[in-house]
Order: sequence, then C-alpha cells, then structure tokens
Amino acid sequence: MKTHELILNETRNVKFSAWIQNVGGEFGKLEKRPAILILPGGGYSFCSDREAEVVAAPYLKAGFQAFILRYSTGERKDWPNPLNDYEQAMELILSRADEWHVQTDKIAVLGFSAGGHLAACAATKGKHRPNAAILGYAALSQETADMCQPGMPSPINDVDKDTCPVFLFASRDDNIVPVQDTVDFEKALLANGIMFESHIYAYGMHGFSTGERYLNPNKNCSRVSHWVQDSIEWLAEVFGTLQSEGFSSPAYSGRVNGDWDTMLSADCTMAHLRKQPEAVQQLLAEVIAVISAIVAQKTGKGLSMTPFFKMIKLRDLMTMIGQPESAIERIDVSLRQFSNVR
Amino acid sequence: MKTHELILNETRNVKFSAWIQNVGGEFGKLEKRPAILILPGGGYSFCSDREAEVVAAPYLKAGFQAFILRYSTGERKDWPNPLNDYEQAMELILSRADEWHVQTDKIAVLGFSAGGHLAACAATKGKHRPNAAILGYAALSQETADMCQPGMPSPINDVDKDTCPVFLFASRDDNIVPVQDTVDFEKALLANGIMFESHIYAYGMHGFSTGERYLNPNKNCSRVSHWVQDSIEWLAEVFGTLQSEGFSSPAYSGRVNGDWDTMLSADCTMAHLRKQPEAVQQLLAEVIAVISAIVAQKTGKGLSMTPFFKMIKLRDLMTMIGQPESAIERIDVSLRQFSNVR
Amino acid sequence: MKTHELILNETRNVKFSAWIQNVGGEFGKLEKRPAILILPGGGYSFCSDREAEVVAAPYLKAGFQAFILRYSTGERKDWPNPLNDYEQAMELILSRADEWHVQTDKIAVLGFSAGGHLAACAATKGKHRPNAAILGYAALSQETADMCQPGMPSPINDVDKDTCPVFLFASRDDNIVPVQDTVDFEKALLANGIMFESHIYAYGMHGFSTGERYLNPNKNCSRVSHWVQDSIEWLAEVFGTLQSEGFSSPAYSGRVNGDWDTMLSADCTMAHLRKQPEAVQQLLAEVIAVISAIVAQKTGKGLSMTPFFKMIKLRDLMTMIGQPESAIERIDVSLRQFSNVR
Amino acid sequence: MKTHELILNETRNVKFSAWIQNVGGEFGKLEKRPAILILPGGGYSFCSDREAEVVAAPYLKAGFQAFILRYSTGERKDWPNPLNDYEQAMELILSRADEWHVQTDKIAVLGFSAGGHLAACAATKGKHRPNAAILGYAALSQETADMCQPGMPSPINDVDKDTCPVFLFASRDDNIVPVQDTVDFEKALLANGIMFESHIYAYGMHGFSTGERYLNPNKNCSRVSHWVQDSIEWLAEVFGTLQSEGFSSPAYSGRVNGDWDTMLSADCTMAHLRKQPEAVQQLLAEVIAVISAIVAQKTGKGLSMTPFFKMIKLRDLMTMIGQPESAIERIDVSLRQFSNVR
Repeated sequence: MKTHELILNETRNVKFSAWIQNVGGEFGKLEKRPAILILPGGGYSFCSDREAEVVAAPYLKAGFQAFILRYSTGERKDWPNPLNDYEQAMELILSRADEWHVQTDKIAVLGFSAGGHLAACAATKGKHRPNAAILGYAALSQETADMCQPGMPSPINDVDKDTCPVFLFASRDDNIVPVQDTVDFEKALLANGIMFESHIYAYGMHGFSTGERYLNPNKNCSRVSHWVQDSIEWLAEVFGTLQSEGFSSPAYSGRVNGDWDTMLSADCTMAHLRKQPEAVQQLLAEVIAVISAIVAQKTGKGLSMTPFFKMIKLRDLMTMIGQPESAIERIDVSLRQFSNVR
Repeated sequence: MKTHELILNETRNVKFSAWIQNVGGEFGKLEKRPAILILPGGGYSFCSDREAEVVAAPYLKAGFQAFILRYSTGERKDWPNPLNDYEQAMELILSRADEWHVQTDKIAVLGFSAGGHLAACAATKGKHRPNAAILGYAALSQETADMCQPGMPSPINDVDKDTCPVFLFASRDDNIVPVQDTVDFEKALLANGIMFESHIYAYGMHGFSTGERYLNPNKNCSRVSHWVQDSIEWLAEVFGTLQSEGFSSPAYSGRVNGDWDTMLSADCTMAHLRKQPEAVQQLLAEVIAVISAIVAQKTGKGLSMTPFFKMIKLRDLMTMIGQPESAIERIDVSLRQFSNVR
Repeated sequence: MKTHELILNETRNVKFSAWIQNVGGEFGKLEKRPAILILPGGGYSFCSDREAEVVAAPYLKAGFQAFILRYSTGERKDWPNPLNDYEQAMELILSRADEWHVQTDKIAVLGFSAGGHLAACAATKGKHRPNAAILGYAALSQETADMCQPGMPSPINDVDKDTCPVFLFASRDDNIVPVQDTVDFEKALLANGIMFESHIYAYGMHGFSTGERYLNPNKNCSRVSHWVQDSIEWLAEVFGTLQSEGFSSPAYSGRVNGDWDTMLSADCTMAHLRKQPEAVQQLLAEVIAVISAIVAQKTGKGLSMTPFFKMIKLRDLMTMIGQPESAIERIDVSLRQFSNVR
Repeated sequence: MKTHELILNETRNVKFSAWIQNVGGEFGKLEKRPAILILPGGGYSFCSDREAEVVAAPYLKAGFQAFILRYSTGERKDWPNPLNDYEQAMELILSRADEWHVQTDKIAVLGFSAGGHLAACAATKGKHRPNAAILGYAALSQETADMCQPGMPSPINDVDKDTCPVFLFASRDDNIVPVQDTVDFEKALLANGIMFESHIYAYGMHGFSTGERYLNPNKNCSRVSHWVQDSIEWLAEVFGTLQSEGFSSPAYSGRVNGDWDTMLSADCTMAHLRKQPEAVQQLLAEVIAVISAIVAQKTGKGLSMTPFFKMIKLRDLMTMIGQPESAIERIDVSLRQFSNVR
C-alpha cells in the first residue's frame, strides 16, 4: 500500500489523503479497485479524526482504495467552498484513476454529520456525482443545515432522478442532528424511486463513528457498529462483488421496480403491465394463462386481480409459483422490446 | 418445554399455540420469562405457516415463552374481529401468567404484513397493550389497510404518547406493502417521542420472514435476516437482559430525551434546562462553571451556546468532557426534584 | 409444527421428543427436511434441560426436524444401555421418515458432555450411524469415559474410515471434561482422513450450552455462542443447503484430499499424481506443460517441484494460475477413469 | 495516522512499515494503544502482499498501532536471519514506544504460514517475546520447518511455561502446511498450561488470509473469515479492552486453572485444594459446609466428591450454587495468602 498526503488548497487548509493498494502481482488478475471518499464530520467547524482513518480501514480490508478529504471548515466554511473541495478531490481521483487503480464508475462517498451534509450535496447536485453515498447521522434538512451555516442548501430538497443509491444510518435519540433529517431523506428518495437502505438504531450518541468502544465514552446500543459491515455488503451489491478476476455483476439495479424504467421488463408490476397497449397484452397472455392454470389447480378458483396481487412484480410472481428461470428470462427479454407507457 | 394448542374461538377458527419453557430446576433462580406473541401475515386471507413456528424458535432460544395466534381471516376477518382475538389471547396469557411463568410487564407482540397491522393496532389502541412491538413489512397506512379490508383503522393515525417501544423492519422494494408505510410510521413515532429502531433493507421480496434460504425462492439482500438477532438484542435493552438470576435493568428508558418527561433530569437537553425557572439555574450553575473551565482550558475560549451545543443532553455533555459518573448522578438526582416546565 | 412426546423404554425412563415441521402448502416444493437428534449432557447421572429444547430451537429455525433423546442415566446407565437407546431412537426416526418428512441420509446427531460421548460412540461404532456429528465439550478419552462409568468405550479409539464428518467445540479451560479429549479426537479424525471442523474457545465453564446469558451465571468468552450458527452453516455444506425447491449439492465431499479416494481426481495432490503409472503421466503432461509455461512467463524459471508445491491439489494449482473451470473439469473427468494406486 | 517505511537491513532487504494512529486531541484521554506486528507468509521465499496491509486494516480499526515486517527470505533466509529481523523490529518498536504511543506490554505478533513459524519462534524462544501470538495456518512441526529450510527449529518443541497466550487458526484440508501442525501445537500448549484459542475450519485453501472474496479464487467454507474479528475480541480479553479512558482489566488471566500458579486461589480445583495442608483445610471448612447444606437441601443427599466434582474450580462451584460474588472474593483473598503445594 502507498499513502499520499496532498494539500488541495493552501489558503483554505484543504487536505487530501490517499491510501492506494496494489493490483497485479500477488493480487493476480485484479486490475482496478472500487474507491471510497470519506468526509469526516465536525459541524463545519473542524474535520474530526474520529471519523477519518479509523473509518477507512474496513474499506481497505474489503479491497477499496480509500481517500479522506479534510474540507474547508471554520472561517473558510462559506458555501460552496466545501462542495468545491469535494469537486476538486473527485477530479484528482478521476485524473489519476490509472495510476491509483480506481474503477471510475465505482466510487462511493461516505460522510458523517456535517460531512454527511456535504456527501448528500455531492450526491444530489454535484458536478461529479458519486456512484453511491453512505450518510451517517447526516445534517440533511434546511433547519439543520442553517444551524451549521445560514443559507446552506438542504439535500432533502435536491434529491432527483439522478441521485445515486444511498445507505443511511443514524440513532433515534440523536440530539445534535435530529433523526427526522434521515426520515425525511428516506421520503425524498422514495418519491424519486432511488434505491436505498436505512438503519435507525435505538440509541447512540451523535458522532458514534464506527461504534468502537474506545471512541465512545457513553453507552450505545449494540447495533451502532453494524453499519460498517452492512454498508460493505451493500456496496458489493450496488457495484458488484470484487473478486480475484474482477467485479461480478451488480446484484440489484436500483429502482423500486421496472415501472420507473424506460423500457418494460419482468420487474414491472402486474398492474402496470396490464395498463400497457394491446401488443404487450398479447405477449402476457400466455404467461397469465400458465399462472391462472396453476392458481386454479392450487385453489380451485380462477385468477382474480386482488389489490395485493396487482402490486407484485411479474418476476416475483413467476418465481413464487415455481416457473423456471428460463421462462422468466424469455418474457423479460420480450418485454424489454417495448417502451414503457406511463 | 410444554406445548399447548387451544381453540380460542370455534366459530371464527381462531387458534392459539403456547410454547412454555421450564423455570427452576436446571434453570436455577429463573422464575419468570419474557414472552412474545406472534401474529403471522397473510393479507387477512389466511395466517401463513411461514411466519409462525419458524419465527418462534429464535425467541425460545433467547429464553422467551412463545405464543402464536392464528386470528380471524377470510370471511371472518371483519374488523374488529382480529383485534378481539388479540385481546382474548392477551387475557389468556395474563390469566395464566403464573402457570406459564410469564413476566407480565415484558410481553412483546411481533406481527408480519397484515399481522403487523394487527400488532400495530394492539400497540396503539389495544385494551391490553403490549410492552414492545416488532413490526415486519407491516400494513400501516390507511391506503394499505383499506386494501386488506375497507374501513380498517390505520395505526399511523393512532400512535399516541402511550404507544410502546417499536422495532420496524421492511425491504425498500416491497411491492405488496409499500415501504412508505414504515417510513410514515417512523414519523408518527418521532412526533410522539416513542422509542424505536428501524431497518429498511435494500431489497427483499414481501414475506421474507426470517430470511431463511428455504423460505425464499427469490434473491434477497444479505441483511434481511439480521432483524431476528437485532430484535432480540433490542428487546433485551427494552426489557432488561434475562440472566440466570432474573432480569437486569433496562438499558434505555425510551423517550427521545428527558425534555419529554414529567420531571427534569440529566437526560434533558442543555437548551431545555436553560429555559427552566431560577431554582434550576442555580442548581446548574456549578456544573456549568466546571464545564466552562474545562472548555476554556482546552480551547482558550469561553463556553458559547452554539446551536449544536444547545441540543446535547446534560448527561452526554458531562460524559464527553470527562466528568465522573458520580457527578452526573448527583445532578441527575437533584434535577429529578423539579417538575418539567414545557 | 407438531410435537410428539414418546416413552421409548418405561423401565429405563427413556424419553423421546419430536418437533415436526410441515412441508408442502405454504412451504411449496419442500418435501423432506434434514434432521437433528439431540443428546443432552449430565455425566450419565441425568439429562440436562439446559441442553435440550433450547438447543433444538435454532435448528428448527434453520429448517430441521428436531428430536431430543433423554437416554438411560443414573442407576440405568450401564453400558450399552444409552447406546441401545440411541439405536432405538434412530430406528424410530427411520421408520417414520415419511410421516415426519425426514431426509434419511441427512440426519445429524448433537451431543454435549456425556451426551457427546454417546454421540461420538454412535458416530464411530453405531449400528445406525448418523450422517454428521456435533460434539460439544464431549467426554471422548478412556480416562474421562471411565470417570462416567468404568469400562465405557472411548470414541477416540474407535474412529474409523466410516466415521461421519464431525464438528467439535469446547472451551480451553474446561475443568470437568478436559479439552485434551477434543484435541485427541482431532488427531484420530486426521489419522483416518475424516472431515471435521473444530473450535476451542479461550474460556467458558463446562456446560455453557448455547452460551445464552441466562444459562450461564459465570463469564464466558464472547465466542462460546458462535458454534450454533457455525454448525448450521457447516451442516449446510455437508448436507447441501435446504432451499425452497429441495437440497443443493453438498459444498464439500469430505476427505483431506483425493489421495484418499478409490479413483484419482483433480483433488489429488501433485506429489501423489506424479507417483501414478505411465498412463496417468501422459494425461498430466499437457496440463503440466501449460503450468510450466505460465510459471516460466511469470518467474523466468522452469517449474521445480518444491516441497510445498508437491502438496498442492491439482485443482487448487490450476485455479491459482488462472486456468478456466472447464479445463479443470476436463482433467478431473479423465483422472476419474484411473484407479488410485496407493 | 502517520505511516513510516523503514529499511531495517539493506543487505537482506528487510523492510518495516509502521501505521501510527494519533492519541489525545479528538481521542481524549487515550494515551497509549496496543500494537500488532504482522509477519506475512510465503514459504521463506518471499513476503506475500496478500497477508500484509489488508491484514493490518482491521486491527487499525480496533485501535491498534500496526507494524508489518518483511523479513529475510529467498537467498537471505538462513536461520536465524528471520528471527534476528524480528528482534530488530521489536527493539525498534520498544525504543520508539513513546513517540509511537505503544503500550509496551500489549504487543501482539501475527504470522501466516512461514510467517506463523517465525511468530511462533518469537513466542517460544525470542529474546523480546510478544505478549500474545496469532498463528494462521502456521508451519510449526519439525517436518514442515525442514521443508522450508532444513535445520530450522520447530516451535512445537520449544513451547515452555513462558510462552504467551496463543490464537490459532487453520483449515482442515490444508495440503501445503498440514493442520496436524496446529493440532500438535495445541497439545504442546496444553502440556505447558498456556492459554489458547483455536479454530480449525472445515475447508479453505492454504493462504486464505482474511478470507476476502477477492483474495481467494477458490471456494472456502464461510467461517474462514471469522478469525479476524474473533482474534480482535480475544486480544481485548488478553490485553484488556481499549476504552476512551484507557484499558480495562484483562478478562482472563491465562492458565488452565489456579493449580498452576504460585499461590492458591479460588481458581484452583476442589481436588487440588483438598490436597493442601491443614491450614487451608480449615479455611475451606466453612465454604464446604455452606455448599454441603445447599446440596443437601436440593438433593436430599450429602456432598460426595464425584470425579467430575473434584475437577471443578472453587470459583465456578460457588457461582453455580448461587454464592454471592463477595463471598467468592473473600475466600479468594484468603487463599492467596498460601503458597501452592504441588
């Protein structure tokens, strides 16, 4: 591993650390690695050491290149200075991607508290948006943002269709950044069909970081440390698993269901597919006939579109009644020929 | 262990299973055990075996007495039949608490999907409210409740100050019961100052139960099985840990902070304490002097009430600056003499 | 789930409990389940409730049918009474396998302390040997067996080529049954090429069972509870994973390597393959040429059979140098035509 | 964090990396940290990158200072060159302990394969012995040592009373370094009363390192990655837990039981205490009277010294029958006045 300590901006005291792991050699066919850019918290007054290197370590173990950005704070915190620091850091990573063995479409950003605010701004309105964002007890509402610095943007308002997948964690009794911010961000993500995962732990003091005992004089609930491994597994699903011969396919594409996509697919809900034009209905007819026959055989009744039934994805319905994967793939390929009528 | 299968209501085909573990003897000083009452899902059309005994097992291992209620469904589902079934089950448990070695103030209810709707109704408007509720991909909104049966109540609307602590879990891409229900329930709990924990997993098909591989033909994200152990740890915090000599004290009392309680305490926020009458200010003066001195020594500046600082609990602030537990206890005991002025 | 309580032998007070889970219906294509037969400990003086139902619970969750045998103890413990009880229990399970939905070649036995002695006797000299054995702080040496009852057999002496895969766990500071018994059993398994897994935890009092807090007044190291989940994952590897459509293939066949098997294979070591007759050498020649070329390209040197290199399995060697799975399968199929010359 | 790359020996190409974490400041009262010195494997031919930085990461997260030693290999591997490299590294760490914030009595060594041989040599015959040793699929027998280099010492033969606590892990089907080495080391540790923990996983290819997917093209059993977190918890027990205000007391003192110590204690076995001189018997009389009374009340029989009963520690016996901790402490303090007669 090689480490680099760079000053991105002398005037604003912006520091950038890079932890670069080898590829090739003992690592065989590994040529590129995913990356994580860490933004420590500190209320835009400082960048906390408690949310820096100690946080990079588990991602290094998981095979990531790790970067830490100590962005503009204190008297230099005027918006958009911190966001500009982020953009500069991303440009640096992208420009040195070959030298640093970074897979440029697999860069996650991880921010805590005020750093979570910055990470969420990067994910919602950044010029160089990350491919995934992890937000820890993050300041996301206008009210909390204003407490850091009047006039800063609220990422809740800026969530859009191009926001990357998001992993959220917080503690329910946080008195410093209210967990309300996290709940309202969930709602904004839902409204925009953005993939997310969220963990709100029963209790834990603001700034619990990785939950390590030596970082927390107070007592937190036992789960506060789980987000670390959970987020690593989640990133493997979003980016694909890092394997000795490269990345596997991502496990999950990211929307709520296919109803949100440009083309139809087996990931659309039954209700949505039934609203599509005649040509799609003809395609569906055979599949529905098979489903009806199986349902009739099991229940002695015909297939009725109950409210719950309407909301199931075609893929899940076919899986549930035991249709082989090949049959699902066949209808999926056919459906993908049709534009989604919304 | 002894098992009992009882018919609670022949007309409505309501069945009740009890799994009763021994106390005393090989279990030494253990005299009472916590209990869990499981309400399977099934859209009020049936009660799913996939969310019944297999779910009881891990709580049995953790030392609980386990009960399963197969409540009124199908043609017998008219509201409030299912809630009445719940009340009857609770009355039975309470009336046989001695025989069944149940600690009557440590009874949790666990419901899935429609059973989660029933569990949430029990927690928010039940006559015999549970002491904790675990809600799995639960139908909680008016819209979803109406899909089960027009006119059923929405637990989201019924959350009140007397609602018990709640543990929520769901998957983000649930097409059957939208995860929106879970998010809106979080908001209702927040608004009422109710303790909760919530896990929204990235993806998993509705009805994933404990997440066991043999229960799920489809692929779920790796975390969907975590709620089982997490909920057991959470119950140990809410109820106290079951030990060989009985229960420990609960780890957490349950409100967001002391600002919500009848009397003042060290769990109130600094901002709230600063708004209390003169007598409280005098009590605080000494503590604040110590804090100011330490802050001055560390930073060279006086203590200023920044927005973040105002929101911290007195207990956490004293812990952070290294005050001994005895000092915290002293001021806590003193504050508890004063009524909370809200 | 249905429970059955049977008396196997009135004179000797032998009791048998069966916990039978459903198949079909809500469980779809599931027709058979694996089974576990639990033998509690108690020094052949009694059968401890602390190592009975609480232990069955996690295997029920994992999809197993669970059986508990309270075998002959106290004045009825004369050998081979307990082993005869075991045989009777196995005959019962096998005769009712259809009714109880048991997959008859996937029956594990799990014994603690004296029950671990009995389980190990079943695995090494039983008439109806189990398909896997889990032995918890088990009495395995002649010395410890004699302490229970002079003249009882020592399973260490009876390990043979037909012994099933074994999962061992114990604590290092066990004063009642010395951990030496577990270490010596490991050696006996190694000498006979039997698959095993073994966990010796730093400290934990004899009889810690599942490690639950309420079962242990004393302090054990944090790992003593890990064997439960570990053994469930291990059983899934030995038996195949229970899935909604039935069992997957076992993940591991069980010998140290192919050198122990009747026919050659890619799981033989290089050294062993190099000792086989000419026809095998011709078959290997092409593979070795490819390996040599790759090694030469990487290191600039020829392929030399260093001591470590000789001990690697052909399959692992080909995997390491990046040969595709198809190439490995090809040579494996070819080698399986040849008898193993030992 | 600061990193240092030093050349310890130019002629032999010995390299030393130091990863030094801060204390004080954001880390409050933390003044010293535990340390780990990592010795990668590679058959004394090279030092593998796969067992270097990626392994340091989880210990950094856990609060350790981490050091990696790339010792003499290949043409420079002549014994005792590698051991001399180790001694030089330890001297460096000890001499800079203040600058590097290292708690000098809490330094662990972690070695893999040939590095495990070196770590075990350090633990058994080193001039600067470590305070704990973690040995991964280590070459420990004379036979395996000779394969690396004829005439190298076998650590199995060198285990003595002063060997530090040891954590062992390996896979059962290792073809390169036979698991027999690990089992024989367990026996040597037992014979010398040395505290240890040991995990032998069912299958995993030699050199699986932390078990990360991208480091292993082959399939290993799911447990091979568990040793990382397990070893961290074990180190916390041996060294004491690193807390914000410093280290807690170690959870476990390390011998099999008090029978091995210089002075008597409540950790001696009943059988051992009964063999001590008259004065000790008088001291025990009262305790035994209480125990007898409780046993009589429970069983209706007198206290008989069954073989199992003799082997229990006084502390565990008193805990089991429900004696308060204060009573145990009292007899413990009294016993510690007496020399142990062996």
